Amino acid sequence: MSWWVENGPKIAEGALRIALTLLIAVVVRFLLRRLIDRLTRGSSEKRKPGILRPLRERAPQALGALVSERREQRARTIGSVLKSVVTFVVFGIAFIQVLTELGMNVAPILTSAGILGVAIGFGAQNLVKDFLSGMFMMLEDQYGVGDVVDLGPATGTVESVGLRITTIRDTNGTVWYVRNGEILRVGNSSQGFAIAVVDLPLAYGANLPEASAALSAAVTEAVEEELLAADVIDKPDVLGVEKVTPEGITMRVTVKVRPGRQWAVQRALRAKLMPALDEAGITVKSTT
Amino acid sequence: MSWWVENGPKIAEGALRIALTLLIAVVVRFLLRRLIDRLTRGSSEKRKPGILRPLRERAPQALGALVSERREQRARTIGSVLKSVVTFVVFGIAFIQVLTELGMNVAPILTSAGILGVAIGFGAQNLVKDFLSGMFMMLEDQYGVGDVVDLGPATGTVESVGLRITTIRDTNGTVWYVRNGEILRVGNSSQGFAIAVVDLPLAYGANLPEASAALSAAVTEAVEEELLAADVIDKPDVLGVEKVTPEGITMRVTVKVRPGRQWAVQRALRAKLMPALDEAGITVKSTT
Amino acid sequence: MSWWVENGPKIAEGALRIALTLLIAVVVRFLLRRLIDRLTRGSSEKRKPGILRPLRERAPQALGALVSERREQRARTIGSVLKSVVTFVVFGIAFIQVLTELGMNVAPILTSAGILGVAIGFGAQNLVKDFLSGMFMMLEDQYGVGDVVDLGPATGTVESVGLRITTIRDTNGTVWYVRNGEILRVGNSSQGFAIAVVDLPLAYGANLPEASAALSAAVTEAVEEELLAADVIDKPDVLGVEKVTPEGITMRVTVKVRPGRQWAVQRALRAKLMPALDEAGITVKSTT
Amino acid sequence: MSWWVENGPKIAEGALRIALTLLIAVVVRFLLRRLIDRLTRGSSEKRKPGILRPLRERAPQALGALVSERREQRARTIGSVLKSVVTFVVFGIAFIQVLTELGMNVAPILTSAGILGVAIGFGAQNLVKDFLSGMFMMLEDQYGVGDVVDLGPATGTVESVGLRITTIRDTNGTVWYVRNGEILRVGNSSQGFAIAVVDLPLAYGANLPEASAALSAAVTEAVEEELLAADVIDKPDVLGVEKVTPEGITMRVTVKVRPGRQWAVQRALRAKLMPALDEAGITVKSTT
Amino acid sequence: MSWWVENGPKIAEGALRIALTLLIAVVVRFLLRRLIDRLTRGSSEKRKPGILRPLRERAPQALGALVSERREQRARTIGSVLKSVVTFVVFGIAFIQVLTELGMNVAPILTSAGILGVAIGFGAQNLVKDFLSGMFMMLEDQYGVGDVVDLGPATGTVESVGLRITTIRDTNGTVWYVRNGEILRVGNSSQGFAIAVVDLPLAYGANLPEASAALSAAVTEAVEEELLAADVIDKPDVLGVEKVTPEGITMRVTVKVRPGRQWAVQRALRAKLMPALDEAGITVKSTT
Amino acid sequence: MSWWVENGPKIAEGALRIALTLLIAVVVRFLLRRLIDRLTRGSSEKRKPGILRPLRERAPQALGALVSERREQRARTIGSVLKSVVTFVVFGIAFIQVLTELGMNVAPILTSAGILGVAIGFGAQNLVKDFLSGMFMMLEDQYGVGDVVDLGPATGTVESVGLRITTIRDTNGTVWYVRNGEILRVGNSSQGFAIAVVDLPLAYGANLPEASAALSAAVTEAVEEELLAADVIDKPDVLGVEKVTPEGITMRVTVKVRPGRQWAVQRALRAKLMPALDEAGITVKSTT
Amino acid sequence: MSWWVENGPKIAEGALRIALTLLIAVVVRFLLRRLIDRLTRGSSEKRKPGILRPLRERAPQALGALVSERREQRARTIGSVLKSVVTFVVFGIAFIQVLTELGMNVAPILTSAGILGVAIGFGAQNLVKDFLSGMFMMLEDQYGVGDVVDLGPATGTVESVGLRITTIRDTNGTVWYVRNGEILRVGNSSQGFAIAVVDLPLAYGANLPEASAALSAAVTEAVEEELLAADVIDKPDVLGVEKVTPEGITMRVTVKVRPGRQWAVQRALRAKLMPALDEAGITVKSTT
Repeated sequence: MSWWVENGPKIAEGALRIALTLLIAVVVRFLLRRLIDRLTRGSSEKRKPGILRPLRERAPQALGALVSERREQRARTIGSVLKSVVTFVVFGIAFIQVLTELGMNVAPILTSAGILGVAIGFGAQNLVKDFLSGMFMMLEDQYGVGDVVDLGPATGTVESVGLRITTIRDTNGTVWYVRNGEILRVGNSSQGFAIAVVDLPLAYGANLPEASAALSAAVTEAVEEELLAADVIDKPDVLGVEKVTPEGITMRVTVKVRPGRQWAVQRALRAKLMPALDEAGITVKSTT
Repeated sequence: MSWWVENGPKIAEGALRIALTLLIAVVVRFLLRRLIDRLTRGSSEKRKPGILRPLRERAPQALGALVSERREQRARTIGSVLKSVVTFVVFGIAFIQVLTELGMNVAPILTSAGILGVAIGFGAQNLVKDFLSGMFMMLEDQYGVGDVVDLGPATGTVESVGLRITTIRDTNGTVWYVRNGEILRVGNSSQGFAIAVVDLPLAYGANLPEASAALSAAVTEAVEEELLAADVIDKPDVLGVEKVTPEGITMRVTVKVRPGRQWAVQRALRAKLMPALDEAGITVKSTT
Repeated sequence: MSWWVENGPKIAEGALRIALTLLIAVVVRFLLRRLIDRLTRGSSEKRKPGILRPLRERAPQALGALVSERREQRARTIGSVLKSVVTFVVFGIAFIQVLTELGMNVAPILTSAGILGVAIGFGAQNLVKDFLSGMFMMLEDQYGVGDVVDLGPATGTVESVGLRITTIRDTNGTVWYVRNGEILRVGNSSQGFAIAVVDLPLAYGANLPEASAALSAAVTEAVEEELLAADVIDKPDVLGVEKVTPEGITMRVTVKVRPGRQWAVQRALRAKLMPALDEAGITVKSTT
Repeated sequence: MSWWVENGPKIAEGALRIALTLLIAVVVRFLLRRLIDRLTRGSSEKRKPGILRPLRERAPQALGALVSERREQRARTIGSVLKSVVTFVVFGIAFIQVLTELGMNVAPILTSAGILGVAIGFGAQNLVKDFLSGMFMMLEDQYGVGDVVDLGPATGTVESVGLRITTIRDTNGTVWYVRNGEILRVGNSSQGFAIAVVDLPLAYGANLPEASAALSAAVTEAVEEELLAADVIDKPDVLGVEKVTPEGITMRVTVKVRPGRQWAVQRALRAKLMPALDEAGITVKSTT
Repeated sequence: MSWWVENGPKIAEGALRIALTLLIAVVVRFLLRRLIDRLTRGSSEKRKPGILRPLRERAPQALGALVSERREQRARTIGSVLKSVVTFVVFGIAFIQVLTELGMNVAPILTSAGILGVAIGFGAQNLVKDFLSGMFMMLEDQYGVGDVVDLGPATGTVESVGLRITTIRDTNGTVWYVRNGEILRVGNSSQGFAIAVVDLPLAYGANLPEASAALSAAVTEAVEEELLAADVIDKPDVLGVEKVTPEGITMRVTVKVRPGRQWAVQRALRAKLMPALDEAGITVKSTT
Repeated sequence: MSWWVENGPKIAEGALRIALTLLIAVVVRFLLRRLIDRLTRGSSEKRKPGILRPLRERAPQALGALVSERREQRARTIGSVLKSVVTFVVFGIAFIQVLTELGMNVAPILTSAGILGVAIGFGAQNLVKDFLSGMFMMLEDQYGVGDVVDLGPATGTVESVGLRITTIRDTNGTVWYVRNGEILRVGNSSQGFAIAVVDLPLAYGANLPEASAALSAAVTEAVEEELLAADVIDKPDVLGVEKVTPEGITMRVTVKVRPGRQWAVQRALRAKLMPALDEAGITVKSTT
Repeated sequence: MSWWVENGPKIAEGALRIALTLLIAVVVRFLLRRLIDRLTRGSSEKRKPGILRPLRERAPQALGALVSERREQRARTIGSVLKSVVTFVVFGIAFIQVLTELGMNVAPILTSAGILGVAIGFGAQNLVKDFLSGMFMMLEDQYGVGDVVDLGPATGTVESVGLRITTIRDTNGTVWYVRNGEILRVGNSSQGFAIAVVDLPLAYGANLPEASAALSAAVTEAVEEELLAADVIDKPDVLGVEKVTPEGITMRVTVKVRPGRQWAVQRALRAKLMPALDEAGITVKSTT
């Protein structure tokens, strides 16, 4: 009884503190989750997560419904991952806090965790890097399934987009698993439009104005044929003499085309323009 | 006796705390193991471990029974490794906790462990990296025994898949031990299908439309022959003029084939198409 | 009642301390925000943020209204990001301080945060690097939308400038997402003026003084034609024999032009100067 | 005397604690050594150390008695090194613990050790890396004395296998000391079998079917000669046209041979097949 | 009243300590600023900051008034930056000290700062590196506006010298922003003098003594012409046969010229010496 | 007097503790020095330091008296360096311990040392790496003065072996100072024996069996001449066709020679074998 | 008065401690300075600083008075820099110690210093590396003003030797500022002697013995001419056939010369030996 008198208040205070701890944990978790919601989901009129909005100095092109839906879904998934992490961390700390209130000495736990954290941290930094890179690449919508991309370690068509790795398939059908943290820059050939670039080698002494005229006529004719016309979205452009090297002269022709069609158009143009030059009597590197 | 009166409650409280510590350790260990189970094993309908599921934007191809069994077994093994680690860590901390309750000063132990942890951590980060990379590559099922892969440091057929190293055998029969942490990207040539790519050099002035027609006929005929027909899974495609360089013109032909058969098909097509061009009277780079 | 007598002062003191803590937090936050304002916004006559002003040894060219507006807007945005960070940090610390005053043991929270901080810090350093680099590149106004830049990983026209990534589109129409932290140096071809450089190969034994005279006449004539005259902003310069290698002799001609027009001018000059040399009877690498 | 009454229990308690400390140290050391024994030595039927067993998905080939003995000896040595380390660490901590019980302030010792540990840890990480890599390469039995290996920095025959360095002798007789931590991947040409690969250049226009037939006949005859027959362990294979480049056509022939004999077989086959092609009237790159 | 008696001394002591703290802060700041003054400004007769003076084993050339003024101004600016940092740090610490005296628990503040410091420190190390490198490059006066420098990432004329970045403009008119921390070595072509180096290719079998004599005569004549004479500051030197390679023989001629004029002189000499060799009947690589 | 009664025991106890501290320091130092002795000096019959002995799987060749003496002297020097370090560390810690006993607050000293240690540790890691690498390279006796070695950054004859740097002189007489930490692998051409390798180019269509026979005869004769016989330690070996490339065929001949003589033998053999092939009527690449 | 009785002893003790602190600081500083003196200055008969003496296995050549004076001066300067650092550190710690005795709470100061130290330490590691490398390169006397050195980032004549940077001037007159920490190895061409190496290309089928004899005669004659004789310090050596490649045969001649003269001698020998071969009727690569 007297024990109760003596220890009662202490116990009551302890219980109070534990309750307070749990309450704060719940509140903090709620606030952090709302913050995540605001940052990643965004309201319907401002798609891009808040934290990434500032200073993108040019307005994005009008996005199709498909893309905006993809973005919304991605932001939702990332948000759900972040929320799991927040729940784990907040309740973990609250758990340790409660142990303290129960009179346990938590120093060993914290120190052990610290040592483990540092020891593994060194080795796991690539993992963290991969996930963080993946998260940002998704939020920034750098590429989607089906895009033709150059990720550095490999080039091809995107097969799947993951938080840790991106999978692409190259022209040989090989599937490449690329860790997101290893992707230092992304080249996406499937955004908005593409430009078909055709370089044609001429011999020294070739009549340049005639060559230019012949190319101009040939390429204009070529892009109006049925097969190419659907892909071309702007008038072709004979840029002129691109290079003068000891090996010869190079003329360049460019055409703006639908994204993903540049390689087919380039092949078709090469097959058309080489004979055109021949017919016009331009020496095409044949008399080396 | 009076000693007992004086010290009894303290001892009783100590014993209580030790019991509590052990109880919490057992509970935490149980919870963590269940978490590992959920993450790595998955129920039968959702094979892929939970943590890796989000944002793989394309549904995986239907997997054969073999592959799903392999995955299940892998996840089980990784889970068992992780559980050993959890057991080790949780009981290690509980052990130190009990020492504290017995009145031992654990600061030296923790500090020594910390120093050791940091000192070795620097050197061991490659090891940790290897194991973590291996674990994830397994969970993501990037390759299995028998696949032909390009791991960066070496290219060949996978002989064994380990947590720290992957073993492959290249075309010279050399066995390569590659540390998983050194694998920045994986190119797997044995997934789903492959594409046989044949590049054929033509001389300048070759008649391109004729060459294209001749190649088309020859490749169509070739893939219907008994030996190749079994490997080919789609119609061949004469892509056209791939490159125009000072050295000459290059035509490209591609055929979609069963994975692993692309090299044999390429060799067979080269042996068929070169004579076909000769017969069609196309100048094949012979008059340099 | 006696409890109140005993604990009242303690409680009062605690409340006082909490109030003091919050007051200090508000004051510190206010001071830091004003500091940020002073550093990033600047008064109207000294556009460049204070911290970057010293030791830029040459006075900047007079900037158009557009550029100064862009700068002001950028500085404002960066300032607003920094202020959010300051608010977050200052109130976070105040929150922990208040927890202490309420008698909570905050050591576990701090230690957990420390472990998390270090563990993630390793992996997130690229992220921090990206943001810091982006912030400084913006403050220094290294490039804006529409500039043609060489960022190292990719070269092309800037599409958008962000805190973490810069987006550019290259000559093939490919969009490149370059992380700001990967940009070790920036080459901006659209600032102030550009120089069109044309290298022309001559054969050994070519009459050098005649070649020089012929080039001089041809280039002077060329830059006075209607199409080029608008781009050229200074007299052309025939520099002379740039290289003597076993492959031949190289003459160099340069013209100062409006930024962004150097490539068009170069192409036009090549098309003009090659025939000019031919007409002047200079052997142009034709008799290898 | 009264001093004794006063201090006796304290001293007794101290002595008790020291004894307890030493006891725990001995027990922990014993347990850790047994763990090492279990992990590295293994019972007679499961040679491979326990920790490395999981997920090697393919059963190892039956190993000769020599290899298993080598493994057992290696595991024993590594175990003995690890046990020394364990003894050193456990008794070192116990020593510091005892100092505490004697009333010494151990903080300076621990801090000094920590500073030294970190300061040296930076520089010594290569050393730790070398030893850890060496330990794992041994446990995994990646190569043994006499194997022909490609370690990256050097290629040759292994002369000795050490924990920190591996020594190999290359074809010039130069001895290479390679630090184990610098070995990112190992290529071992002496495991199981090897494949002799012979590439033969043909001229454009060579009759490919005839060439193939001639090579097939020649290689079959060659591998049945007395000298080669002992090395060859499978029928030779004329793979076909390996490459078509502007320089010419390349045919490839492969033979599976005993490990270490691939270079001799390749040289012998080259000497046989070149004349065979000549005799068959195939143009072998002679009319460039 | 009795409260005052009880707490008065404590309060008085606290106020005393706060005053002492502020006093010490002011004194330490004063001393550090004076130290900075001494190190960076230097007295009028010893321009170079004290810390950089030792062990520059050669006396610097007499510096023009312009350079010394530039140095003085740079040192002053760097000193002012350092002083701001010192003020910020000293008063920051004093502020925290005063908080302690007011009975606040500053541990959370310090720990938070520590975590932030480490977390950001990883990412910001490039920034710190840039500023420190810039500071030292300025103090050492490695280059100034207008110098032609090779910084590694880019080569050109210095446009501005900053603490974080150096801006240069290359021969194409492209402006390069180079981070000072990325500059591993600086090559300055505008200090004291430069050497024009002209390499001339000769054919095998050319008469070497005659070629040498002809070059000697031609170069002596060339450097006395009006245009070049102003740039040349020493007699030209025909070094002789610089290289004998399978491609031919190379003769080298050098002339010491005013800094920044080496390229113009080289071009002029090439244009003079090639015809001179022709006239002397030396075979100049023309009969390959 | 009463002060003495009060403080006497405390002082006595302090003095006792100081004495105990010093005693322990002396004992620990003695033990560590004995450990160093055992590890580095070794008894006379087991030269190699204990820690490096395990797992060198091949017995070292019998060492000359010179080498063993060199090793013993090296081990002695390293041991003496390590002992100085041990003395410094042990007495430094004891000094701080004594300060504590004197009632000084050592926390500032330790913290300052820690900060300095970390701050400098980053920059000094190369230094530590150099010394540790040097120490191990010496213990392992990778090379000695006079050996011809390839250290990576430079190749030449060893002039001196130091703890931080190794000095070698290359074939141009240039002296190279190589930091030991930069040496990733060592190639020593002066150990045991060397192999002279001579590659001879043949034209396509050369009679391979005849060429082989002619080479065999010529090399056998050559190695029996007086000048070479002293260097050759085994019969020469005509390996056969080493390479078949579009450039031609390469035959390889090898001879085992005394270390350091391989280059002279190679030069002599080249001068002998080329004419021998000519005499035998083999086309030696002369009709390209 | 009673206050004095109460606090007097405490104050007296405090004053005593402060005095003790300062005394210890002075003594430690004195001891460390003496240690530095002993390590860097050395007595007159043992020039090299003590710490670098062990294990330089070869006795240094007799040094001229100039060199020893240079060394002594360098060691003195480094010693004075180190002493300043020691003074700064020791008195800084003593200052903090005294603050403690005055009852100040120094934890914030130390923590702030720690955070700053780590935060800046990351960025400043290059600086520390530069200074440490410079210090050691000086102590080891790797090069002096006027030496021709290859530092890696640049090659040329040393203009000045500094603690942070070394300045060299290359053959184009460009001045290079190289940070000492970036110098991984130093190649010094001005120590003791140099070797002039002349490689001469011969055609296939050239008469090798005759060529050897002709070269031998020509080089012997050449080195006896007045101009060269002063530079040559040993008999020339016709090494023989250095390389046999598809491009031709290479003969090598070497001559030991005074340091710094190797390039002039090489040029002179090339100019002499080419005609000598011509006269002897050796085909010198002229009939390609």
